[in-house]
This record gives sequence, structure tokens and C-alpha cells, in this order.
Amino acid sequence: MAVHAETFEVRTKGKGTYEVTDEVQKIVTRSKIATGTATVFVRHTSCSLVIMENAAPPARRDLEKFFERLVPEDADYEHDDEGPDDSTSHIRMALTRTSEVVPIADGKLQLGTWQGIFLFEHRRAAHRREIVVTTMGD
Amino acid sequence: MAVHAETFEVRTKGKGTYEVTDEVQKIVTRSKIATGTATVFVRHTSCSLVIMENAAPPARRDLEKFFERLVPEDADYEHDDEGPDDSTSHIRMALTRTSEVVPIADGKLQLGTWQGIFLFEHRRAAHRREIVVTTMGD
Amino acid sequence: MAVHAETFEVRTKGKGTYEVTDEVQKIVTRSKIATGTATVFVRHTSCSLVIMENAAPPARRDLEKFFERLVPEDADYEHDDEGPDDSTSHIRMALTRTSEVVPIADGKLQLGTWQGIFLFEHRRAAHRREIVVTTMGD
Repeated sequence: MAVHAETFEVRTKGKGTYEVTDEVQKIVTRSKIATGTATVFVRHTSCSLVIMENAAPPARRDLEKFFERLVPEDADYEHDDEGPDDSTSHIRMALTRTSEVVPIADGKLQLGTWQGIFLFEHRRAAHRREIVVTTMGD
Repeated sequence: MAVHAETFEVRTKGKGTYEVTDEVQKIVTRSKIATGTATVFVRHTSCSLVIMENAAPPARRDLEKFFERLVPEDADYEHDDEGPDDSTSHIRMALTRTSEVVPIADGKLQLGTWQGIFLFEHRRAAHRREIVVTTMGD
Repeated sequence: MAVHAETFEVRTKGKGTYEVTDEVQKIVTRSKIATGTATVFVRHTSCSLVIMENAAPPARRDLEKFFERLVPEDADYEHDDEGPDDSTSHIRMALTRTSEVVPIADGKLQLGTWQGIFLFEHRRAAHRREIVVTTMGD
């Protein structure tokens, strides 16, 4: 059994979903772990993670539009120091995920055919986002 | 420390919650891990996992009805290649979970008295769903 | 590689978010694991976990108010044996998290600057809540 950890950065350019599956797989490959898990963790409260349909961009646009309607920027929030995307970004993060754990077999992430790992950015402005990947296993 | 992984299949017959706690516990038992974690991962984007009240079926029906109202099939989605349960199934999945990590002590899942692990099917048609369980520990 | 597990209790006094970051870090420290993960798991279906903004209480109040509106107590639920906060507490739990996995480096939780780990209580009455922390790594 061994453990391996690496951090990488994603540069976002406003709200939306950004695929990071390849970056996570590269870390899994470098870790030389054949059987085990990869824990993906995003170190922020105004963006999140989501495993989502990786083939059809309209499916991701529907998801993004759904969150605009469910957590609208023009509702009455108490916390708006950083603008109308302040509290909305925290709420959208809380409704999705901060950590996701994906199994590894034969050195590969065991994602289904249509699954991709995405960073879900909830801020309008560009940001640098840190993701920590920890692999464990044999 | 050791790692053990197995995959099992759930045959769903339309939308709803399907308990898989016993299948996960059987894998934990076969893995002979006394102290550690069981990572449960579903390999699909149109169903999800949820740890839910395991005793009262009305509680699960309320959850299912809530999602029908929150993510209605008759809203205006761009992605509907596979019907009105296409984008809705991805959104409902994103709002619940793809991976869940449950502690193991004395070879048993440390679920609370009322906690069960459920596959949450978001599709109308019957499907075969794959769940990967990875146990790690001593 | 080693595994270490401890359970602690949180006494809640009605609905709201209760920070548990310090309790989790103390267990990480006692486990003497330098590199690895801490799995945090709450053993209940009427409260949940959320990693949330740890500095501005208004951000947490906005989150709590959002859930009151999204899953209102006065909607029509079938399951209300324990009152209007019965089904609502399970639905709010399903929309947030039961397990969260946080990376450890140099013996410290690798939370971002603004991230705290919170128990999210969905019940009006006071409760004792159990959280299991499992650390694994080197």
C-alpha cells in the first residue's frame, strides 16, 4: 500500500464547467497505484466539483442554466460583499461537491463511459483554483 | 493495510430508490478489512447514490416527489436526445452523489441505525447499473 | 501506511451550521498521519455535512435561509410522523453530504483558507450527533 499526493491549478474564465479528468488521470499514472482510490478535493468555497456527462455540451449548459434559476443572483442575500455572485457561489457549491472519490483499477480511473470530472466555477471573474489529488492503494 | 475492490450490478425498473446496503456489506465482509473505509462509486451520470432513511418508505417517496418538482421533466431543456428524462437525470445526479465513503469498524459498515445506501435511478426505462466498492484498511 | 478511527459527538441546539474543523484536526493530529486523507462521516439522516465559508456568518445564514425556501416545512409531505421538520430534514440531508474526504499533508487538513467543516442540523429540537473520522496514509 502506498499514498501519493499532488496539487494542480485550473485557470477559470467565469462561470461554467471545466473538465479536469485528464489532469487527474496523469496523477494516477504517476502515482503507479494499480488498485485503490483517487480522492479529488477542491480547496475553495465558491467553486465545486461535479462528475458529469462528458460528451454532450448541451447537457452541461442545461445544468448551468438550472443552477442560475435555482440560486438566482437577484434574490435577497445578506452576504454580498463581493457582489451578486458571492452568496450564490457558496450555495451552488454546497449543493454539488467538494470531494469526490473515484476507484482505480489497472492504474486507470474507473469512470463510466460518459463520466468526466469537472470543476464547476460559480464566480464571474477569472480565478486560479487548486485541486488536490490523493491516490492510495497497491 | 490492504485494498480490495469488487463491482456489482443493480437492475433498475424505472425511477426510484433501490437499497444496496446488503450488497456493500457482503463485499466488506469478503474483503476481511476490520478497520477502514468502503468507497461506493456509481459509474453513471443518469443515476446517483444517496444515503437515506431506511425504515419508512414514505420518507423516500417524499424525496422522489421533491426531485420531480425541483427538476421537472416539462421544463425547457436544450439536451433531450433521449427524452424528457435526459437532462433531468443528469441534474438530479449532480444534486445528489456519485461517491460515498462509509467507515468500517469490526468488519461492519458504520452506518447509523436509520441509514441505508441507495441507488437513486433517474431514468424511466429499466437499466443495468454498475457500482464499484473499494475497501481499504487493516 | 496506517489507519486510525475516532468518533466524536456534537450537541446541536436546533437548525443551523456547527463548525467541527478543530475536532477533526485534533483526530488527524492524534493519528500521526502526515500524508493521506481524513474521511468525515455523519451517522444520521436528518443532519448532514457541508464544507462552507468559515469567516462570514451572513454567508452561512444565507445558506440556511436558502434551504428553508427550497425545502419548506409547509409543503405537502407524506412522511410527517415526527413533525414538519421530518421529511424536510431528510431532503436537505440528501442535497448536501453525508461523507466528505479531506486530504492531509504534513499532518494538517488541506482545507483552503476559507473552508471549514460544518455539521448542518436540520431538526428543530436539540440532538446529539455522531461523527466518525477515519484517517489513512503514511
